[in-house]
Amino acid sequence: MHPNSNPLGEFDLIKRFFKTEIDLSATNPAVNLGIGDDCALIKPSPGEEIAITSDMLVEGRHFFADASPEQLGRKALAVNLSDLAAMGAKPLGFTLAIAMPAVNTEWLEAFSKGLLAIAKEFACPLIGGDTTAGPLTLSITAIGSIPMQAAIRRSGAQIGDDIWVSGAVGDARLALAALRHEVDLSKEDYQLIAPRLHQPTPRIRLGLALRGIASAALDVSDGLLGDLMHILKQSKVAAEINLTHIPKSPTLQKQNLEIQHQFAASGGDDYELCFTAPHNQRAAILEISKQLHIPLTQIGHIIPAKDQHSSLFLKGSDGRLLASSETSKLLQSFDHFAK
Amino acid sequence: MHPNSNPLGEFDLIKRFFKTEIDLSATNPAVNLGIGDDCALIKPSPGEEIAITSDMLVEGRHFFADASPEQLGRKALAVNLSDLAAMGAKPLGFTLAIAMPAVNTEWLEAFSKGLLAIAKEFACPLIGGDTTAGPLTLSITAIGSIPMQAAIRRSGAQIGDDIWVSGAVGDARLALAALRHEVDLSKEDYQLIAPRLHQPTPRIRLGLALRGIASAALDVSDGLLGDLMHILKQSKVAAEINLTHIPKSPTLQKQNLEIQHQFAASGGDDYELCFTAPHNQRAAILEISKQLHIPLTQIGHIIPAKDQHSSLFLKGSDGRLLASSETSKLLQSFDHFAK
Repeated sequence: MHPNSNPLGEFDLIKRFFKTEIDLSATNPAVNLGIGDDCALIKPSPGEEIAITSDMLVEGRHFFADASPEQLGRKALAVNLSDLAAMGAKPLGFTLAIAMPAVNTEWLEAFSKGLLAIAKEFACPLIGGDTTAGPLTLSITAIGSIPMQAAIRRSGAQIGDDIWVSGAVGDARLALAALRHEVDLSKEDYQLIAPRLHQPTPRIRLGLALRGIASAALDVSDGLLGDLMHILKQSKVAAEINLTHIPKSPTLQKQNLEIQHQFAASGGDDYELCFTAPHNQRAAILEISKQLHIPLTQIGHIIPAKDQHSSLFLKGSDGRLLASSETSKLLQSFDHFAK
Repeated sequence: MHPNSNPLGEFDLIKRFFKTEIDLSATNPAVNLGIGDDCALIKPSPGEEIAITSDMLVEGRHFFADASPEQLGRKALAVNLSDLAAMGAKPLGFTLAIAMPAVNTEWLEAFSKGLLAIAKEFACPLIGGDTTAGPLTLSITAIGSIPMQAAIRRSGAQIGDDIWVSGAVGDARLALAALRHEVDLSKEDYQLIAPRLHQPTPRIRLGLALRGIASAALDVSDGLLGDLMHILKQSKVAAEINLTHIPKSPTLQKQNLEIQHQFAASGGDDYELCFTAPHNQRAAILEISKQLHIPLTQIGHIIPAKDQHSSLFLKGSDGRLLASSETSKLLQSFDHFAK
């Protein structure tokens, strides 16, 4: 009697591919009600606020049509978890809205496998969503929690603060360049860095550790320096950055200096954290690095903004300031419409 | 120096069209941080839980390419608010992820006008989101709050409960039929019912009033009887419905009986609430109807499920039960993939 007895009906789709077998409340005790009602219900702990972030991935724009669906499922949630990490939030759950041209069960199986694996890894269960016919588009909203006043905002950078970045940056851009045949890369080198493009690691544990230590933070999705500008603008400060201090992988360091600097400074899709912290937190930050096995590198410091202009001053290997034209080039972060 | 100085850049887009002029915390004091950081921050009140719902609208599937962008902006949020209403939740804020093929400023202006108008009307500010190039797709996640244990779930219907529906159903389907030339409708009649398709009213105030009164509820998005089946299945009960009691507008009542029944029973996009309540709440429900100026009509009642089968028994105008084939037809609710 049920109208959607068609095995490929919308409701069955959700159940078949996305309803986790695990009991939701066991995955995350904050989830009071998951998939299957008009809304999901989440119970925040007393004294906590809720962090919310949404990202949309479109085929042909954010991923290729032949992208591995398992990696795509993983990445779709990873980029949202990365936003939670940048705020210092702990994941609670996420919703997925997905449009696809037709039901491809093989694709859906692999996609949900990747998606639910990272969901489980970060105790962030799928709690609701929507499925519809349409050009392949993924829209995820992730919800996290954070003690009141503990959120690490972009607006908190102070003059004198150190500027840090986690891991290494530029590898995702290098992998993309290899796929586009913009650079020559050996198969071995490509395989070393490909996971940085296809399987980024959200820095959730780092974000949690930086609560009360970092003064401002964001995740590097569009390019390190372009993203850093958001912190500078919102904090009404400027920054001085040592280009040579920006952490690069051994693989990226095999490229010529121009590519190294360009990819590390403006390559998107890294999902590392860039954050500021008072200088006296230096020992605490290095201890976090040691505990979490995540390299953390100081790349510069916050200086006063001249005439309320949030500029970025870049120093090259010779210690001299780069010309403004060269700086502009290194600031070209990825913009979905401007290009 | 900012990389996105292009006036049509992604970040400028958001600022230009979607950043409300109103101070966010004034619109809704629960919003601690809105657009412009990695996440938005919402502070729930003590003892409240958070309700979350996501809906995706795709051009050509949920709306025509020539749809009024102002009405579309309104409807995109309305369908999400309708889900909050069905849970008895109070709106707190929403995120918008939007893919569009190119920047059309005229379209964006009208779209954001409609979107922000309904956002203001329901004190549900835009708190974040994402914009990207791609086929026109809108994905909204709405967040609401509700006192712990007060959420009206689909699973709460009890044997003996009355079944109610708000307003009138079938008009949105009738308007769609007129647009598709499936029925003849005078211009005057079309104009009377077109708002039911293009500008649905989320029943937020009704949802709030039904807290503690309704035992189960959902919003009618796919079709009254098909949607009611979700309540029956989750509550493990059956229902008896008087077809002639289903509320229809005078405009729909001008159509032949077959269309009347079909559109009222299975026409989607109504966004009325269907709910169950103990019989002794009848007076309270009629009082709510009077206070809110929303017609509330009892259309049947909950009966035990036979052999754990959540069936629906429909009675026609002669008081006799409809044959199962006829019932099946009236249950054909809209399914984005099954059709």
